Amino acid sequence: MEQNTGAAAEVSTEGAYVTGGEYTRDTTYIETRITRDAVDGYPVEAGRYRLVVARACPWAHRSTIVRRLLGLEDAISIGVCGPTHDARSWTFDLDPGGVDPVLGIERLQQAYFRRTPDYPRGITVPAIVDVPTGAVVTNNFPQITLDFSSEWVDFHRDGAPALYPEDLQAEIDTVAQRVYTEVNNGVYRCGFAGSQEGYDAAYDRLFTALDWLEERLAGQRFLVGDTITEADVRLFTTLVRFDAVYHGHFKCNRQKLTEMPVLWAYARDLFQTPGFGDTVNFDQIKAHYYMVHTDINPTKVVPKGPDPSGWLTPHGREKLGGRPFGAGWAPTRPVDA
Amino acid sequence: MEQNTGAAAEVSTEGAYVTGGEYTRDTTYIETRITRDAVDGYPVEAGRYRLVVARACPWAHRSTIVRRLLGLEDAISIGVCGPTHDARSWTFDLDPGGVDPVLGIERLQQAYFRRTPDYPRGITVPAIVDVPTGAVVTNNFPQITLDFSSEWVDFHRDGAPALYPEDLQAEIDTVAQRVYTEVNNGVYRCGFAGSQEGYDAAYDRLFTALDWLEERLAGQRFLVGDTITEADVRLFTTLVRFDAVYHGHFKCNRQKLTEMPVLWAYARDLFQTPGFGDTVNFDQIKAHYYMVHTDINPTKVVPKGPDPSGWLTPHGREKLGGRPFGAGWAPTRPVDA
Repeated sequence: MEQNTGAAAEVSTEGAYVTGGEYTRDTTYIETRITRDAVDGYPVEAGRYRLVVARACPWAHRSTIVRRLLGLEDAISIGVCGPTHDARSWTFDLDPGGVDPVLGIERLQQAYFRRTPDYPRGITVPAIVDVPTGAVVTNNFPQITLDFSSEWVDFHRDGAPALYPEDLQAEIDTVAQRVYTEVNNGVYRCGFAGSQEGYDAAYDRLFTALDWLEERLAGQRFLVGDTITEADVRLFTTLVRFDAVYHGHFKCNRQKLTEMPVLWAYARDLFQTPGFGDTVNFDQIKAHYYMVHTDINPTKVVPKGPDPSGWLTPHGREKLGGRPFGAGWAPTRPVDA
Repeated sequence: MEQNTGAAAEVSTEGAYVTGGEYTRDTTYIETRITRDAVDGYPVEAGRYRLVVARACPWAHRSTIVRRLLGLEDAISIGVCGPTHDARSWTFDLDPGGVDPVLGIERLQQAYFRRTPDYPRGITVPAIVDVPTGAVVTNNFPQITLDFSSEWVDFHRDGAPALYPEDLQAEIDTVAQRVYTEVNNGVYRCGFAGSQEGYDAAYDRLFTALDWLEERLAGQRFLVGDTITEADVRLFTTLVRFDAVYHGHFKCNRQKLTEMPVLWAYARDLFQTPGFGDTVNFDQIKAHYYMVHTDINPTKVVPKGPDPSGWLTPHGREKLGGRPFGAGWAPTRPVDA
């Protein structure tokens, strides 16, 4: 849920409030769900909805990975915003003429306004838009991927993995919660700290959590159970951005990811799995963070490094056992379908 | 020669002009020399001069290393400014009462004004001050260390190395020139680039030079000959700051120094040699760059990383042969004498 600045001066480009030197994320979203029973008025229906993302955004990235792992490409189309939204909205500047070919709009804000005129909160991705009405159904990113798993089962591809199996949900939730507060959000807490003290505390929290993960993943291939789950998806989106942006731009620099051997091997294992690396665009990731956050990078200069070729080197994690897709198998469709 | 901002708006905190997106260093210094023949009016004389430095500054760092390697501590006293000069001057804020105990001044600017009232250029370190008059003699940093070697020979310690031996001067000059323009200054060219194009070009120049050094030093322990020379001193001061500030703050991020195996081993070899590592203060280095350059780090937050403990790990460069101090030996005096 990277979002635009909006009008309120205290809302940063990341939808966060800085209070007393510590970064706090605005976590109020449109919580309407798309379900089989259509309890909120939106039934699961192939071809009806459009998932709008930006390749840059880690919160949106979850949804592109899960959509691909589950094979929902035909059921839910995708619209991709460019990496550098302006002060008002994410925009479809990557599309011909700057217009999303399905929704017919230039700015994601227009779909939010269709839902709520003068929508007062951040214009965030991911957002799911109801194509017939052109209105945003939800931008509640943690629920979006869980509903892909549990509500869209009739449209899962053959061989789709169980990313959120019932018997592991409690453990996935526990791990994902710590990953969310300490890692996914922890890097932002470092980068947007309003004081040295706020930053120092955020840095210690972040690396305490990364040390915990380094230890947890030393003896097991995946975060929960012996297959890829929602928990791995959620950790991956931060790890893949770590050296490209968080290490320098957000000052998360005790080590690079490449200097944390277990996490680096774990991240490469996932990167080399279809659905993960093939949804990553390092250029758009770097452009977003370095060009949008002018409060911490006023020059808007985007670093050329780091060299990403290491992501394709052998990781050696197979020796830990486990089957990435459980009883299923990897997606084989082309990307960006 | 890190310098203060001065009044002129086009002078950055690093004494540089940015023209057309490319960074250019102001290289006009007070070129008065202290020599045995006192051709400029200043004779070599023990106890007469005070070397004013800041531990943060790479240009001043050369002089503290060479002074220690040659054992000039008794002949030339040292005054140390704090890391975060203000808009007008480096200051003696580390000293009791904020006053240099020998010169009796709070601001290095006062010594410049003793030399030239309303001195119009940057107030830079290193500067050598004539204690009797309190006036700056020179701030011409490349000449200062060469004169330590060639003019102060009568005061060199027993076992002092020949850092600028006549038979190697041509080669040292050639190597040092490329190191200066491409590496010492190259990191600043990246960090202060006024445009993406300027930065991209600067990054390519820098890493082209680092690749050259990585190759040159793969088969030889030191840059020129088989002992430490002035050329090594000049390269070291940039390498030791690389991961702490240049990698993130200046966006020199193709790799960290720790990811360039030859240069990393070479830098550790020097760091572990008396005169090098014992003149490094990482806290002051980081504080300087991150707090003074508000144009590229407006928050003034100083990163906690990277972990510097790797500097003391074995480097394995002994196998390349060579004798660091040639016929001499390492300095054994305490630091900061």
